[in-house]
Amino acid sequence: MTSSAETAPPGGNGRSGRAPYDLPAVLDIAVAAFNDYGYDATSMGLLAERLGTSKSAVYYHVSSKEDLLRMALERALGELEAILEQPGAQAGAADERLTFVLRSAVRVLTDELPYVTLLLRLRGNTDLERDALARRRAFDNAVSALVEQARSDGTVRADVDARTTTRLLFGMINSIVEWYKPGGALSQDQLADDVITVAFDGIRVHPGD
Amino acid sequence: MTSSAETAPPGGNGRSGRAPYDLPAVLDIAVAAFNDYGYDATSMGLLAERLGTSKSAVYYHVSSKEDLLRMALERALGELEAILEQPGAQAGAADERLTFVLRSAVRVLTDELPYVTLLLRLRGNTDLERDALARRRAFDNAVSALVEQARSDGTVRADVDARTTTRLLFGMINSIVEWYKPGGALSQDQLADDVITVAFDGIRVHPGD
Repeated sequence: MTSSAETAPPGGNGRSGRAPYDLPAVLDIAVAAFNDYGYDATSMGLLAERLGTSKSAVYYHVSSKEDLLRMALERALGELEAILEQPGAQAGAADERLTFVLRSAVRVLTDELPYVTLLLRLRGNTDLERDALARRRAFDNAVSALVEQARSDGTVRADVDARTTTRLLFGMINSIVEWYKPGGALSQDQLADDVITVAFDGIRVHPGD
Repeated sequence: MTSSAETAPPGGNGRSGRAPYDLPAVLDIAVAAFNDYGYDATSMGLLAERLGTSKSAVYYHVSSKEDLLRMALERALGELEAILEQPGAQAGAADERLTFVLRSAVRVLTDELPYVTLLLRLRGNTDLERDALARRRAFDNAVSALVEQARSDGTVRADVDARTTTRLLFGMINSIVEWYKPGGALSQDQLADDVITVAFDGIRVHPGD
């Protein structure tokens, strides 16, 4: 995560023509505000206040609040879509590719927690939001196709519909943004392991385990 | 579900002293509006408009908007808490009680979809909301205690933390409110079976299955 302390250019003070924060820091604070108050209820004035600067300093970086939303959603979606381009998602048995994609998705969720939270809470009120939801659906569909392929291969159970399986998997994974505390006792890697274990093998101890 | 067509008392017209809808119908419409617009953005005037009646007709039933929220949350929480009082939740092996509680929770979610949706979206902005969240946590803790007991019994896997297990289970179950369409191709019973199958046995086909 980018923190404002690390990224504020030295000497920036919000009163000169120079912006006191760089764009990633402005984006972090905007996303936190959108998640706290809701996008509609967050004004550029409120963002400036949280940055301890003026509205004009915010406009140094972006031309509108929607610009900030666009950049934030691009970050979350770009990271998720990048998973599908990696070799682990493209080559190998479908169940192994599915494991790779789910594990990587947990990693993106925990690395980019506020950004993915924003994405998951979108309701589709504007063209920008609807475009983002379409990209999120495309990602879900790619995962659903892997589930279908693994079912055909006989490695994933066929007695549950592929779409239902995918939704239950994402239900489990997406819930992470509601309760996971980065830096806490549960590491990102342990969480990813736990998700894969529960998703693939369930919580039951089977005779012979 | 209660529909307004079935429950409007005959002869009610919104202009007499008599309310044109009965309380369950008013509550259904209020909950739908809270879910569509958000609780804060829903005024008593908007509710009256959606009911096709006057504000005074709405006040015939309730003294405030918060009354409607209280009744709606009571309905969702009451149904969830009632699960824990049933024999299937109280007697038997912990893993069987856990199965009973999760299956029953899926049933409550699908029977009371808008009411549980409202509960799950609460942010805890008022005392009423915080009380509801505390009751929801108490329900989650009861389920977590069953997971703990089943782990001790050796019927639920011990290599995933009980709290993480519970959260992943509820992540899967609570996501149902986001995508399940009552009356569609997937029946409530089939969905409950699918949740139990995926939660307990996972999506992988094991050698010998």
